[in-house]
Amino acid sequence: MASDFSIRGVVPPVVVPLRSDRSLDVDAFERHINRLVDAGVAGLFFLGSSGEVAFSTDEHREQVIREAVRIVDHRVPVLAGCIDMETQRVMYHADKVMELGADAIVVTAPFYAIPGPHDVENHFRDIHAHIGAPMFAYDIPVCVHYKLSPEMLVRLGVDGVLAGVKDSSGDDISFRYLCIYNTDAGHPLSVLTGHEIVVDGAYLSGADGSVPGLANIDPDGYVRQWNAYQAGDWETVRSEQDRLARLMRITSVTKGVGGFGAGVGAFKTALHEMGLFPTNQMPMPVEALDGDNVAAIRGVLRQIGLVK
Amino acid sequence: MASDFSIRGVVPPVVVPLRSDRSLDVDAFERHINRLVDAGVAGLFFLGSSGEVAFSTDEHREQVIREAVRIVDHRVPVLAGCIDMETQRVMYHADKVMELGADAIVVTAPFYAIPGPHDVENHFRDIHAHIGAPMFAYDIPVCVHYKLSPEMLVRLGVDGVLAGVKDSSGDDISFRYLCIYNTDAGHPLSVLTGHEIVVDGAYLSGADGSVPGLANIDPDGYVRQWNAYQAGDWETVRSEQDRLARLMRITSVTKGVGGFGAGVGAFKTALHEMGLFPTNQMPMPVEALDGDNVAAIRGVLRQIGLVK
Amino acid sequence: MASDFSIRGVVPPVVVPLRSDRSLDVDAFERHINRLVDAGVAGLFFLGSSGEVAFSTDEHREQVIREAVRIVDHRVPVLAGCIDMETQRVMYHADKVMELGADAIVVTAPFYAIPGPHDVENHFRDIHAHIGAPMFAYDIPVCVHYKLSPEMLVRLGVDGVLAGVKDSSGDDISFRYLCIYNTDAGHPLSVLTGHEIVVDGAYLSGADGSVPGLANIDPDGYVRQWNAYQAGDWETVRSEQDRLARLMRITSVTKGVGGFGAGVGAFKTALHEMGLFPTNQMPMPVEALDGDNVAAIRGVLRQIGLVK
Amino acid sequence: MASDFSIRGVVPPVVVPLRSDRSLDVDAFERHINRLVDAGVAGLFFLGSSGEVAFSTDEHREQVIREAVRIVDHRVPVLAGCIDMETQRVMYHADKVMELGADAIVVTAPFYAIPGPHDVENHFRDIHAHIGAPMFAYDIPVCVHYKLSPEMLVRLGVDGVLAGVKDSSGDDISFRYLCIYNTDAGHPLSVLTGHEIVVDGAYLSGADGSVPGLANIDPDGYVRQWNAYQAGDWETVRSEQDRLARLMRITSVTKGVGGFGAGVGAFKTALHEMGLFPTNQMPMPVEALDGDNVAAIRGVLRQIGLVK
Repeated sequence: MASDFSIRGVVPPVVVPLRSDRSLDVDAFERHINRLVDAGVAGLFFLGSSGEVAFSTDEHREQVIREAVRIVDHRVPVLAGCIDMETQRVMYHADKVMELGADAIVVTAPFYAIPGPHDVENHFRDIHAHIGAPMFAYDIPVCVHYKLSPEMLVRLGVDGVLAGVKDSSGDDISFRYLCIYNTDAGHPLSVLTGHEIVVDGAYLSGADGSVPGLANIDPDGYVRQWNAYQAGDWETVRSEQDRLARLMRITSVTKGVGGFGAGVGAFKTALHEMGLFPTNQMPMPVEALDGDNVAAIRGVLRQIGLVK
Repeated sequence: MASDFSIRGVVPPVVVPLRSDRSLDVDAFERHINRLVDAGVAGLFFLGSSGEVAFSTDEHREQVIREAVRIVDHRVPVLAGCIDMETQRVMYHADKVMELGADAIVVTAPFYAIPGPHDVENHFRDIHAHIGAPMFAYDIPVCVHYKLSPEMLVRLGVDGVLAGVKDSSGDDISFRYLCIYNTDAGHPLSVLTGHEIVVDGAYLSGADGSVPGLANIDPDGYVRQWNAYQAGDWETVRSEQDRLARLMRITSVTKGVGGFGAGVGAFKTALHEMGLFPTNQMPMPVEALDGDNVAAIRGVLRQIGLVK
Repeated sequence: MASDFSIRGVVPPVVVPLRSDRSLDVDAFERHINRLVDAGVAGLFFLGSSGEVAFSTDEHREQVIREAVRIVDHRVPVLAGCIDMETQRVMYHADKVMELGADAIVVTAPFYAIPGPHDVENHFRDIHAHIGAPMFAYDIPVCVHYKLSPEMLVRLGVDGVLAGVKDSSGDDISFRYLCIYNTDAGHPLSVLTGHEIVVDGAYLSGADGSVPGLANIDPDGYVRQWNAYQAGDWETVRSEQDRLARLMRITSVTKGVGGFGAGVGAFKTALHEMGLFPTNQMPMPVEALDGDNVAAIRGVLRQIGLVK
Repeated sequence: MASDFSIRGVVPPVVVPLRSDRSLDVDAFERHINRLVDAGVAGLFFLGSSGEVAFSTDEHREQVIREAVRIVDHRVPVLAGCIDMETQRVMYHADKVMELGADAIVVTAPFYAIPGPHDVENHFRDIHAHIGAPMFAYDIPVCVHYKLSPEMLVRLGVDGVLAGVKDSSGDDISFRYLCIYNTDAGHPLSVLTGHEIVVDGAYLSGADGSVPGLANIDPDGYVRQWNAYQAGDWETVRSEQDRLARLMRITSVTKGVGGFGAGVGAFKTALHEMGLFPTNQMPMPVEALDGDNVAAIRGVLRQIGLVK
């Protein structure tokens, strides 16, 4: 009954390079994807929160998935975010991305309207009934203001509605129970953590992989960490994590900014400083980081050794 | 510099009748709109939270506004919700509704992605620069998890970016200051409260009107209250409000439900029980109220005298 | 069955003057109390949040109530805050203040430990069973992180457990229902609003009085407003409120401060600038406002005409 | 400059056995303490949240610490919670417990009044200046609604104000940075996690120990886990944690209860079912668990093998 789509390893949520007119920079996107695939990732997640899905028109979403599918070319699975307020718009996006060749869809709880006690589970079941594609639940209360319960997630896994979970909830207790209940149910779900600063703890809890935004900057570090985990080398798992936690300070050394602009803004600025993105352009209405904030990020990269 | 679009009085956020297949029931919609206009409302707000904008495909949104513009036929202004996650999608909806003949757009703070300190003001300014139509800011933190500040709203009013505000924040202190600062600035904004249970207090604070979801059920009550306010008859203003607060209990007498399904679900159920809507059908994934919950709502309507 | 203690009118929560060694300045306290009583208040509330109860040792609490009872000398009722984490400590304080001659006690929901579904109601009932004194429930979720429901409050009023409510919740919808249910139950509760910026709206909702911290600065304004309300002169009620809302900006014109230090700190600074308090000393660990912040508060007082 | 008090290992926050008249059951307390010490704990924490400090009169607090110091008799350090709303009451408790022979004090951020930007750091510095005893900061935002920052904690460690931290924040990202910054500063702080379900992740992050409420039930499990951590045996660390996470379900299998009554109530019920506590009596106003809830807890204990 459970989905036969599964995934194990590092699945970066891909950050999108924009030109100064805010259009997709396809060449930079191709180089970025190839760098991630070459690093040994297990899959790529497009149009997630870091992939600025919220800021995207339908046309932009379509271009991102079309190019992603072309560039990835079946080297790893393509997971496509179908993030929108409620069920019907999610179905619309799901139809589109599956037509374009995605391998799985990623869906949050509904948001904007406050859900009642049955709405969230109905939402996932209705979408599964509509499209049948492998589906990951994306648990991201900081954006949708609703926490998915481990009990519901495992129930949906057992029923074949969900193939997996991307847990960006920051709730490591809930994550532990998700792993335990999933194991007890025969492991229907691929359980991935989006919690980039404590991926090591999630592996100890039994995670099947990770979806760290920071892997856009340092995919090798997260792949090394995964390989150490597979080898049972926990000292490397934790020391690699400490190094990555220090790198993650690019998102907190800045001043006078916050939210998405401080987080994904720092990722784009780091990729620009490292020579991998031609700009650090952000989508409307967010301003790109500049001045002292760029210098502060560069300082962190220099400490870690990612720039000179 | 300030917008020359203004509005004073009751502006119901129109609830949408659906057939059992969840398509728009155009005939019931026409009767419902005509009932509201005949009651003496000052405008109609379509595709708000109560107008289930979050649950609507782009095609459904277009149909709602097209039919609304046709039916209203310039008897009162048509305000059209352009609710979406971020700036570019809001611009898309704004272009659509203005092409279809709406008189003004209604826009929330961006949501899903966490905004930085300048993003929200940039959002409204970017949309104004793009379309120039009369724009109302919709302050609804319960849905978008961000509170618009009175200072920013009045600044945007003075600069002609905003024509008004629909305040559904439930923060009556902030509302008081919004009214005071707006007066001090020469009253650039039409300030409307969406706070249906204490509209009387908002009028005392200086509101230019109200946007009560409950006016879908009892438009006459809210229009009588507005007229009493214009006449300085505060005893009628408050006693009418007490009556309407009792009617609003249709949204809290139910059990085992919550959120949008308990709120708009109760409105639709009441309209169905009163013979005005052929069904109480809800959009996917929300279930219509049934059984004891319908009976409890009917009980409230009977106490108020809206059904026998 | 209902308590026979009732109160109608303005009941300031009294701010406490400290010497520079943080001991009670009894002379200034006496002058302050007399000024409030002379203004025509209906009662005085000591050891509330504004009365820095949280910062007080048991000895300091005892001194405050002892001196208050002596100074007030039965001219108006003395309400004494018995604010502490859980039931037994509240009982301890209640015994003390009643021995010292207070007329009624004021009690919040328990805090620190998270309450279960019956704990809050049990708390009030247990305290009533212990002491039997007239008791006001103090609804202040910003401090105790729990909202008292109108249904529970009226039930406790009907049962004689509560004589009244001080509502500082900022939830004007809940307040409206509290007034409606209280009326329906035969008005067992004296319902007072602590919501100083929109007292007018609370009176429109049916409040029996107010507990405005700002009345420490301008008791005459709140008493004039109350008298206008009693006379049905709503235009005076609202214009007086607008004036007081402008005065309340002493709590928001400051910079680099927040919370209690910005709120009660502004009250004490204003009283000092007006020559009524010898210092603006705050309790440990809060720093008194100084420099530009004092100047900004003085600017607001000058605009209102309370200093030259 | 840093404190010379340090601790490494398991430090249970001791649950308090009450007689049916809610007085301390000294005999059961003695047996309980001895069981914990014999299991190999590194210290004992009295009058924490689990030690029902919020529900205690000053006399009860004094009795608990007096008996604890007598029973422990220097076998392990006694940490005494000095939990109260603001600085002066904390100083009062600190004086008492140090007189009674405690080895260190445990202090939260101030609560009830909303703190300004400097109040929390001033609070810890003022208390240190007053008493000078080894002090642990207790980071428990669920009770005090304020999160202590890693930067401030390490600064206070470097300055000798704090000897350690008990982190019950549930924020594992903040905890990781606390460990990293503490290491960079020369390890002035003993960093303990209160996060009983994912202690393994905290050890991976570099914790110096744990303060798990659940260790009242199963001290041997947490001590085995600590010893495995010291030996670098991570597979035992995680499998022991999985077992303890399953045991922790005693706090979530109950129905119709919540908060402290569901958490500490389950601990007391389990200890009663295991024959270690003569009653599962709770402090006023909390009701003891009964009926089906006791049976559900017993079911969990049976699955783990702690009862037959």
